[in-house]
Amino acid sequence: MINIIIAGPRGKMGRAAVQMVQETEHFHLAAVLDRKNGGKYLNEVDGFAGIGSDVPVYEDHEECFSTVEADVLIDLTTPEVGRIHTLSALAHGIRPVVGTTGFSDEDLGELRTMTKDKGIGCIIAPNFAIGAILMMKFAQNAAKYFDDVEILEMHHDQKLDAPSGTAIKTAQLISEERTVKKQGHANEKETIPGARGADFEGMRIHSVRLPGLIAHQEVIFGGEGQTLTIRHDSYDRKSFMSGVRVSVDTVMNLDHLVYGLENILD
Amino acid sequence: MINIIIAGPRGKMGRAAVQMVQETEHFHLAAVLDRKNGGKYLNEVDGFAGIGSDVPVYEDHEECFSTVEADVLIDLTTPEVGRIHTLSALAHGIRPVVGTTGFSDEDLGELRTMTKDKGIGCIIAPNFAIGAILMMKFAQNAAKYFDDVEILEMHHDQKLDAPSGTAIKTAQLISEERTVKKQGHANEKETIPGARGADFEGMRIHSVRLPGLIAHQEVIFGGEGQTLTIRHDSYDRKSFMSGVRVSVDTVMNLDHLVYGLENILD
Amino acid sequence: MINIIIAGPRGKMGRAAVQMVQETEHFHLAAVLDRKNGGKYLNEVDGFAGIGSDVPVYEDHEECFSTVEADVLIDLTTPEVGRIHTLSALAHGIRPVVGTTGFSDEDLGELRTMTKDKGIGCIIAPNFAIGAILMMKFAQNAAKYFDDVEILEMHHDQKLDAPSGTAIKTAQLISEERTVKKQGHANEKETIPGARGADFEGMRIHSVRLPGLIAHQEVIFGGEGQTLTIRHDSYDRKSFMSGVRVSVDTVMNLDHLVYGLENILD
Amino acid sequence: MINIIIAGPRGKMGRAAVQMVQETEHFHLAAVLDRKNGGKYLNEVDGFAGIGSDVPVYEDHEECFSTVEADVLIDLTTPEVGRIHTLSALAHGIRPVVGTTGFSDEDLGELRTMTKDKGIGCIIAPNFAIGAILMMKFAQNAAKYFDDVEILEMHHDQKLDAPSGTAIKTAQLISEERTVKKQGHANEKETIPGARGADFEGMRIHSVRLPGLIAHQEVIFGGEGQTLTIRHDSYDRKSFMSGVRVSVDTVMNLDHLVYGLENILD
Repeated sequence: MINIIIAGPRGKMGRAAVQMVQETEHFHLAAVLDRKNGGKYLNEVDGFAGIGSDVPVYEDHEECFSTVEADVLIDLTTPEVGRIHTLSALAHGIRPVVGTTGFSDEDLGELRTMTKDKGIGCIIAPNFAIGAILMMKFAQNAAKYFDDVEILEMHHDQKLDAPSGTAIKTAQLISEERTVKKQGHANEKETIPGARGADFEGMRIHSVRLPGLIAHQEVIFGGEGQTLTIRHDSYDRKSFMSGVRVSVDTVMNLDHLVYGLENILD
Repeated sequence: MINIIIAGPRGKMGRAAVQMVQETEHFHLAAVLDRKNGGKYLNEVDGFAGIGSDVPVYEDHEECFSTVEADVLIDLTTPEVGRIHTLSALAHGIRPVVGTTGFSDEDLGELRTMTKDKGIGCIIAPNFAIGAILMMKFAQNAAKYFDDVEILEMHHDQKLDAPSGTAIKTAQLISEERTVKKQGHANEKETIPGARGADFEGMRIHSVRLPGLIAHQEVIFGGEGQTLTIRHDSYDRKSFMSGVRVSVDTVMNLDHLVYGLENILD
Repeated sequence: MINIIIAGPRGKMGRAAVQMVQETEHFHLAAVLDRKNGGKYLNEVDGFAGIGSDVPVYEDHEECFSTVEADVLIDLTTPEVGRIHTLSALAHGIRPVVGTTGFSDEDLGELRTMTKDKGIGCIIAPNFAIGAILMMKFAQNAAKYFDDVEILEMHHDQKLDAPSGTAIKTAQLISEERTVKKQGHANEKETIPGARGADFEGMRIHSVRLPGLIAHQEVIFGGEGQTLTIRHDSYDRKSFMSGVRVSVDTVMNLDHLVYGLENILD
Repeated sequence: MINIIIAGPRGKMGRAAVQMVQETEHFHLAAVLDRKNGGKYLNEVDGFAGIGSDVPVYEDHEECFSTVEADVLIDLTTPEVGRIHTLSALAHGIRPVVGTTGFSDEDLGELRTMTKDKGIGCIIAPNFAIGAILMMKFAQNAAKYFDDVEILEMHHDQKLDAPSGTAIKTAQLISEERTVKKQGHANEKETIPGARGADFEGMRIHSVRLPGLIAHQEVIFGGEGQTLTIRHDSYDRKSFMSGVRVSVDTVMNLDHLVYGLENILD
């Protein structure tokens, strides 16, 4: 049984995490850390009726970490707050699983030292969607055997940036394995500009934006007589929870800092 | 039983047409029209061993059309030659099914008059791939109900032009039904130029080029909570033959010129 | 401007309909018909804060239909209640757009007579998802040109029946155009039973069930050298609203009963 | 520069291999081993006009292997002949890359001993399609993180067996990582038998057969809010050549037997 504190229980991710912890047999929700509602029990907090009548709510992280016997902190707050919680949890021997991106290289250095001194694990993951991480890993691996690849990413039409961050991250990982190659015919020409997409070191990235779509990406490798396609469809933020669950299980067996979920998947 | 003359039997398309005619129960190959091999039978021509020992080869179209009792001419020659054959066949009361693009508006006017005078049909089809034609028809129809659409076309990396002709034709057909709309978020921005593809009246077209691919197109319509996708995969030129077969059957019941296979499909 | 009454505003579909009507420029929400909350205004009903301060709530349909000057009733209640509302609305000269399936052949006969006598339209649509309807229409059309087709339907793993109702409906529509053909190799054999899917008059239907999936269907036609695929992805019930919107616009110009959205799409 | 002998140059795979070797800069075609044409040069053999005027053709493998200074034998003959060639090549210190399946466990044991004694490599690969191998590897890896998976395999309608060998192999590899789980709803029911596909330890496999299709497979993993799909499309047997090329490069650095291409990919 792993005893868990969740920080930020009232956010979208926080609520999903509370549900995930309660549905996982060997997880126990020991307490939650909230900006308000200190002194209540979770079931008294808006939106949690009937859930967690034995789960105390703390507002002060020091009080929480020193009072509650916990193994793991799942932190789903903001970058600034997450950073403070992480350092404090480690100081109290609690292993942090953190889903924010607010850590400088200096912060990470400090965390590396702390985890090493304490001999306990810590996982910081900007992206908890296991399917997306696997897509990137597989794409990087396939790039060893296929020189030609294009990335299609498809999102709802309210997205501002093109290409998506995941598409760029994927292209970067591929380019670590692939020698730069200008793909397509040497003399190809665009009769309408942009047809061939964004050029990332010779690879092409195409961004589709349509109402109805959620978040989808396809990486297509082409070789003589064959194509290999790796696709991830994300329909709901709940998809992050399987990544959080794996991280909680893994952090218990770590004695150092791991940054990025890709580094704990085989 | 429909009696058929094939012009251009030794080309890639011609050979496929010979095979198609022979495999269709109610079609009969009455003769072939070739630049050479006049006076032989088809089975004596290189590459046709064992096929068509009763099919005479003609070099002269006038001689062929006046000698052979034929209902339909399938012409798979060049634009220039095809034009001459078409006029000549009509003059002899033979209904042409022509797969070339070498007809000027003036030519088409002349053919319209001839078919009307003779009261017989003629089909000219730049594209015989029924699946591609249906994709375009369905896309045009769907555009009445969905304002947002993007086109992905995917071809082998030896293709020179992007977007493909079929993609542009599809976009044109869609725009006949759709009021111009700039799709995507009003403030969207490309962090790498070209990510959002080619802009065709606010629709976006993306051209993927990879070794291994053949000829594929996907038209994706997006609406609130749903997408509708129409996709055509062309693996082999043999795909054109079902369009030729339908055209032969249809031309028998026509008394005028039809330009474009889309105009004979319901 | 079309004046609209919505029956069943507090259900999932009802709430989406309220939003859709308010967002459509030429639609006006004149009243709602609810099992409770009679005498209030919509903004006083739970979950509608800030919306519809001028929209009266009625509990009694007779009172509602005789008091409110409305053109169209959108009914999103239960089959039993929907049936009563439909008859009553027609009697008051209000055109019903109904999304339920609770009508017997006898009911439909009665509605046909009433609409004819009154000279006003009525639309009953068991499925308002325009994309799904178009998929079925296109599939039926393509079946004229392709003898071979398989249907893949993919749903979340909480679905009980396989194949889905939409898959069976699609197969029925296709079989109206297609002569029965046993597809696949004459001597094919299943080394594990069920591999070739469900047999519907020689067509095959395959049902995929996976967590994460929502509601998806792919109809694949195969011909020599090509495939044509029509796919619908339904991500959210909001997808039904475009069908409701089209129905409201269409019912204004009808003078008879239409059953099934497919019969109002070109 | 790697010196190569190709056995079976006149078969479909053999011809592709000759072309691949000649197009690869650091490969040199030293000789070919054929059932006939001994004493000629390759360019004198039917279908090789203009290719390999310096490549001698041998009929006797002993003579070939003892005369020609070669590093690698690419064997694309039959299982029986391939077995003899493999043993003989190893005896002459030539590293075999073999694409046949005719080896018993006893044979493999013998080859293991021979390669160990000689300290040279040997690769036997029933499947050289790198894309298909990667698909299987990735699927096996993903199975560690997703309990639910279905396999769709799609082939032309002349295929006899369903499911395909690759689909079964994929399911076996997945089941090595996955605890047996009966997927789908506990109470799901098939209203038409076979809808849910073939049951392989609770996973489902669906076999689509359509004219036009070539050889395609999709492995779909589902988890809460997401799906991960790995797809391989094989359009042409030329796809095998990239696997042969990698094998030739790899076998030079091996000192033992490797069975299965999956064991030389990272």
